[in-house]
Amino acid sequence: MEWELIGSGAALLTMFGFVPQIIKIRKTKSVEDVSLFMLIQFAFGMLLWLLYGIHIQDPILIIANAVSFISLTIAIGLFFKYRENKI
Amino acid sequence: MEWELIGSGAALLTMFGFVPQIIKIRKTKSVEDVSLFMLIQFAFGMLLWLLYGIHIQDPILIIANAVSFISLTIAIGLFFKYRENKI
Repeated sequence: MEWELIGSGAALLTMFGFVPQIIKIRKTKSVEDVSLFMLIQFAFGMLLWLLYGIHIQDPILIIANAVSFISLTIAIGLFFKYRENKI
Repeated sequence: MEWELIGSGAALLTMFGFVPQIIKIRKTKSVEDVSLFMLIQFAFGMLLWLLYGIHIQDPILIIANAVSFISLTIAIGLFFKYRENKI
């Protein structure tokens, strides 16, 4: 029971891990120090995890990585939006 | 076989996901736009994944999250190092 809580806590924390960065980008409208390579690498990695989750039919893997992938897509969108401000 | 490749690719990409951000911080010596909350949330999440991996004795979960946790510790260390530059 307590291990399920630890596993769920782990999943929730990492699943919404990019939310604080998205909030910060929206607040400061600046992405100068954020690594685009990091965002793309995670987006691609989470897409592969999602495909793998669908293949092995693991609902937790599917949900967690779908949420992460969506939040990374938002972060990448904001990156390009606010990078243009700087040019 | 190809699904194992997809799973391994997913694990490798996310495991080393913070490396590009670490490289960028070392290069620019600036962390103004990086969310500390994001780094701490991921570090805590990956630590819980690591504990969970040890509990269920899954070597991939253990290795991937140990590497992620170490890279996040480095990123958090660099964050405080270069944040001080700004004060």
